[in-house]
Amino acid sequence: MIEFSANYIAELLDGEIQGDGTTKINKLGKIDDAEPGALAFLSNPKYEPAIYKTAASAVLVNKNFQPRQELSTTLIRVNDPYLGFTALLEEYHKLTNSNKSGVEDPSFVHESSTLGKDLYRGAFSYIGANCKIGNNVKIYPQAYVGDNVIIGHHTIIHSGVKIYAGTIIGSHCVLHSGAVIGSDGFGFAPQPDGSYKTIPQLGNVVVGHHVSIGANTTVDCATLGSTVIQDGVKLDNLIQIAHNAEIGENTVIAAQTGVSGSTKIGKNCILAGQVGVVGHLTIGDRVTVGAQAGVGKSLDSGQIVLGSPAFDRKKYLRAYAAFRNLPDLLNRISELEKKY
Amino acid sequence: MIEFSANYIAELLDGEIQGDGTTKINKLGKIDDAEPGALAFLSNPKYEPAIYKTAASAVLVNKNFQPRQELSTTLIRVNDPYLGFTALLEEYHKLTNSNKSGVEDPSFVHESSTLGKDLYRGAFSYIGANCKIGNNVKIYPQAYVGDNVIIGHHTIIHSGVKIYAGTIIGSHCVLHSGAVIGSDGFGFAPQPDGSYKTIPQLGNVVVGHHVSIGANTTVDCATLGSTVIQDGVKLDNLIQIAHNAEIGENTVIAAQTGVSGSTKIGKNCILAGQVGVVGHLTIGDRVTVGAQAGVGKSLDSGQIVLGSPAFDRKKYLRAYAAFRNLPDLLNRISELEKKY
Amino acid sequence: MIEFSANYIAELLDGEIQGDGTTKINKLGKIDDAEPGALAFLSNPKYEPAIYKTAASAVLVNKNFQPRQELSTTLIRVNDPYLGFTALLEEYHKLTNSNKSGVEDPSFVHESSTLGKDLYRGAFSYIGANCKIGNNVKIYPQAYVGDNVIIGHHTIIHSGVKIYAGTIIGSHCVLHSGAVIGSDGFGFAPQPDGSYKTIPQLGNVVVGHHVSIGANTTVDCATLGSTVIQDGVKLDNLIQIAHNAEIGENTVIAAQTGVSGSTKIGKNCILAGQVGVVGHLTIGDRVTVGAQAGVGKSLDSGQIVLGSPAFDRKKYLRAYAAFRNLPDLLNRISELEKKY
Repeated sequence: MIEFSANYIAELLDGEIQGDGTTKINKLGKIDDAEPGALAFLSNPKYEPAIYKTAASAVLVNKNFQPRQELSTTLIRVNDPYLGFTALLEEYHKLTNSNKSGVEDPSFVHESSTLGKDLYRGAFSYIGANCKIGNNVKIYPQAYVGDNVIIGHHTIIHSGVKIYAGTIIGSHCVLHSGAVIGSDGFGFAPQPDGSYKTIPQLGNVVVGHHVSIGANTTVDCATLGSTVIQDGVKLDNLIQIAHNAEIGENTVIAAQTGVSGSTKIGKNCILAGQVGVVGHLTIGDRVTVGAQAGVGKSLDSGQIVLGSPAFDRKKYLRAYAAFRNLPDLLNRISELEKKY
Repeated sequence: MIEFSANYIAELLDGEIQGDGTTKINKLGKIDDAEPGALAFLSNPKYEPAIYKTAASAVLVNKNFQPRQELSTTLIRVNDPYLGFTALLEEYHKLTNSNKSGVEDPSFVHESSTLGKDLYRGAFSYIGANCKIGNNVKIYPQAYVGDNVIIGHHTIIHSGVKIYAGTIIGSHCVLHSGAVIGSDGFGFAPQPDGSYKTIPQLGNVVVGHHVSIGANTTVDCATLGSTVIQDGVKLDNLIQIAHNAEIGENTVIAAQTGVSGSTKIGKNCILAGQVGVVGHLTIGDRVTVGAQAGVGKSLDSGQIVLGSPAFDRKKYLRAYAAFRNLPDLLNRISELEKKY
Repeated sequence: MIEFSANYIAELLDGEIQGDGTTKINKLGKIDDAEPGALAFLSNPKYEPAIYKTAASAVLVNKNFQPRQELSTTLIRVNDPYLGFTALLEEYHKLTNSNKSGVEDPSFVHESSTLGKDLYRGAFSYIGANCKIGNNVKIYPQAYVGDNVIIGHHTIIHSGVKIYAGTIIGSHCVLHSGAVIGSDGFGFAPQPDGSYKTIPQLGNVVVGHHVSIGANTTVDCATLGSTVIQDGVKLDNLIQIAHNAEIGENTVIAAQTGVSGSTKIGKNCILAGQVGVVGHLTIGDRVTVGAQAGVGKSLDSGQIVLGSPAFDRKKYLRAYAAFRNLPDLLNRISELEKKY
């Protein structure tokens, strides 16, 4: 367990102590359910009552915070308690995460692959032939890296991720457990007898830098060429990205959304959860798609849409308000018909 | 193969034999497609015709069942054929399931972890550092248990389940293949240049007792504190539970539903398949959400809702009935306009 | 790297060379972004301008193609460039895929199982007791095959697939990473105290021949009897097939669709993405269900439906067009009311 004094944290954050600066901090917590030993923060004034009851050993507060009751916790006064707390979170995360290193046995690496420095390779992890793995990459237990895969520096491949042959992944990425990258695109040619013939999927997936891919998300390889996830894209859990799709820089997609084949999504878009986008569309930059929407045609940059098929969000909400009152509307029409 | 006589089964269920009590039973089946050697049951009178044609070697029937035709199968007369059958199912399940025990090589356990008695640890399973694993736990091949994980007695972790560091799981739980517990919550802070900075996710997941988690379902860890799955919760396959969500006791959620971050769902709720619930809501107890609904605001206990955004189910169905007739409604309005 | 001359490819496809027949081809590409060394094709005349700029070393064109500008690439004239290209794709795929064979250590096979000839068994793959595995089956690293499983010839089980005990899989199937076959059906009996008791799921899953199952798709076992995926079915990624469901021959289902328990879907149906089908329905043959539809009742053969609940597609689209104009409709009604 890592332990710091409140004084040490105050120093780190350029803050001032009020109370016992020698109190020991060994975890981070929320002000309303923290345990002794925890550091919490108070940023939103509506949570102020919690500070008088908190079990946290220390609380980050604003420089000009004036307690109205007695306090049993140590205060650390800083310019911005939330930012200070976030900074500590990051430090803490680095400390606790960085302890994975070295090689656990048994693990599998094909002799033809090139490995960077300071890797973690968990037990039962697999690296196929002709791979190039960067420095400081962490490959957790039971992860699979197929042949001819390239992985950039500092990327984390969590337990059970499956990366098919030929995939290229940038640096500083995080792939969560169960994510599948490079599975065959869903391509089948109908035959005269009603059966389907598999169209070979020979392309790959190219993932940029600083990309996050959620648990059990699937990204299919291209039929030819590449399915592309650009730099900075953040994909939540259980998302489907079909063959030859392209997701633009810094676009964020929430859980259980599906993007169909050959659709190109622009930069800085936000797709909420359970959205569906049909194939072969072009979605502009900074587009926002509301939850459960079904996008059936291409969208210009900056559009905000909702509904299935999706159209302008405000118009959808107005139409939906009217939809809720349709039975009443029916009555009004019947009334009019009677009156005629 | 396990084999019993019809007489033995009659004795187990306190039933009476009519026909050949020495007939051998080695499986369970449905009355309309059972094979010889199978035991079936007849509970719903509408299936009575099937008993005269069944290939089952014996059939559980009600004590006062009067056959109207000749029978080639042995009858076992009991008070409640369905309950009797279910009891046998359970026994059979225990018998066939209980054969997994011991340790298959190679498997990985960190020396610092504490293991209970009578474990099954399949080949290529992984148990990290400082874990506490209860008695009679079954950890199937290729399952992953990260550091500092606690698992209660009699819990079954199927092949390929991934449990991140710090997760706590109660006793008598079943986690199905591909379930991911404790992956990072989806939290990213937008930066001035349009990119996103990862917010460290330092909390964990706490799963109660008697919880079932379906195949490829994902439960993210909390940013701080815990994502909580209370006792008796049943989650189907491919469900997403986001960071800091809480699912109340004995709530049942069907496949492909998603619950967003920090939403709290009460006890004894039923969420049908492909439902979406947005973040930061409070859903009361005994709430029912219909399939594909999108819950956009908090719900009081006992509400039954449908639609996206969801509202009262009966009102939704009335509005939807009117929606289906909208083209007709348009005509009626045009007609009125003409008549004016 | 595999390399052929343009002359060799022309010979394979019964085509004619125009230009340098000795140029070396080592990959396949798209005409508009191919690299040197690639073979591309020109089928759709609208892409003709690309051939004058392509970096591809050779291009398959129609026998009677007349270039209007100078060409720097070699032409291979064939009867049908697209078919020719597809044929090459397949050959290429076979060549590159067929290199997986033999056994990687460590892997696990129970001594009671029977293995066919010419298997590939990747490292950390697991085959339980009493299995029968056909010839030329490929079982990739970290795949799990439970006890009593049967797998037909030429089937490919990708990395991390989980196949529960008792599953039967035909020949020439492909199961993609993370697919889970045979997990417990979602069956729980409500108890008087609000809790649920697990109903043992004792059936299995039977998968026919030439079936494709996508990444992270889940198919639950039957309560009793079998969940059935008939010959030629193609399932995309992240699909849920519940207990006792049956999917008819050559039916194609797109990503993230869910089929509930005991529903029977006919032959040659097409279910688009994110569709939900409730339980205990019978869907006829050649039914088409549009994306995000919610099928709430049985459907006759040949129906085309959309909406949630789903009804006739054309009627849905007409109703939805009216829905979009509901605010306008409201105005018209108000106008009429005023006029009265």
